[in-house]
Amino acid sequence: MALPMLQLALDNKTLKDALAATRVLAAEVDVIEAGTILCCAEGMQAVRCLKSLYPDKIVLADIKAADAGQILASMVYDNGADWMTVICCAPVATVETAMKEARRRSEADGVQRDVQIELTGSWTWEEAEAWKKAGVRQVVYHRGRDAQAAGQGWGREDLDKIARLADMGFELSITGGLVVEDLPLFKDFDIKVFIAGRSIRDAADPVAAAREFKTAFRRYWG
Amino acid sequence: MALPMLQLALDNKTLKDALAATRVLAAEVDVIEAGTILCCAEGMQAVRCLKSLYPDKIVLADIKAADAGQILASMVYDNGADWMTVICCAPVATVETAMKEARRRSEADGVQRDVQIELTGSWTWEEAEAWKKAGVRQVVYHRGRDAQAAGQGWGREDLDKIARLADMGFELSITGGLVVEDLPLFKDFDIKVFIAGRSIRDAADPVAAAREFKTAFRRYWG
Repeated sequence: MALPMLQLALDNKTLKDALAATRVLAAEVDVIEAGTILCCAEGMQAVRCLKSLYPDKIVLADIKAADAGQILASMVYDNGADWMTVICCAPVATVETAMKEARRRSEADGVQRDVQIELTGSWTWEEAEAWKKAGVRQVVYHRGRDAQAAGQGWGREDLDKIARLADMGFELSITGGLVVEDLPLFKDFDIKVFIAGRSIRDAADPVAAAREFKTAFRRYWG
Repeated sequence: MALPMLQLALDNKTLKDALAATRVLAAEVDVIEAGTILCCAEGMQAVRCLKSLYPDKIVLADIKAADAGQILASMVYDNGADWMTVICCAPVATVETAMKEARRRSEADGVQRDVQIELTGSWTWEEAEAWKKAGVRQVVYHRGRDAQAAGQGWGREDLDKIARLADMGFELSITGGLVVEDLPLFKDFDIKVFIAGRSIRDAADPVAAAREFKTAFRRYWG
């Protein structure tokens, strides 16, 4: 299996704080995520500045689009994002219009744009089939922040869903309060990206924390 | 029945364009909505400027929160929003934490904050019961932009759902490419807010278009 990539989630409330994190951590990670909280706070300026600073990294705009797929996809790609998220309960028309915009841009300049379905909250297998049919390749399996706070851990149910999504051919990003000790849980799956935020950003030694993830990737997927 | 309120949806891509609309229209409407597209583009600056310009209007941050309820609620209220949206597929924990923050602020200063559940995309009646239990009072019934473009009109199914939500005691906002000719469809329901965007903003005479809505409100709900 290919080594997973490491994604730094910037769920900061200000661009200033996000940049303080990337200054230290950008070289250690593969994907830089302008988190929902950061996008909500700073808008597209966050995406623009991140791509400007780190043109060789994949920049993800985690806007969790629920509607207006074409407009929002155009907006994030115009501002330098490579990937964006669409929320799982969005109408299929939103998924389709965002995907269409991603494909159009990728074909125009050869730079790969993509749309990820963000599996926060409720969704169904029927919807997953519809995403597949719409050409979606990537899904983000998310143990929500509020679900975590409510005491919901990684469980058998999560792993079964992840297995089924992988069987359907989706590329998987895994997120939700991930710590390096959680990684062996996923070792039987071909995981494209692990997303870490607070467990790296708030570590006493953030670089060492990021490298621990990379070491674990080599251990379990190498 | 009480007269519905009129909400101006600012789904502009820049704050500049949004302010060009509010300069003309703010006096005609009851609620000013920093739309998802505008929030995505400009972040909280949009909410901040709108409340600063129009302190006597209800300002709504249509961020469609899917997670991090407390953080996002704090953020929008700190920036002057009165109401915010949570997307229908958000975990109930997100609804609860956002509601809790709204209540805490309302009780602290006597200014009413609220959380609306945004019914864009798929949701279930079980979820609606859970929102009710979490203390949610307002829901936004939304015919999505992409669903509209895919040719989906207002139908019997929409009206039946609206009736059932009203029976459950929810206050209703109605949106989704609304034109004044659609209003009689809803005349048997106690509607709290009708949301109009392009049909007012893009009218040849935006003020006259807003007043047509108000006239229709008096005709059907007066």
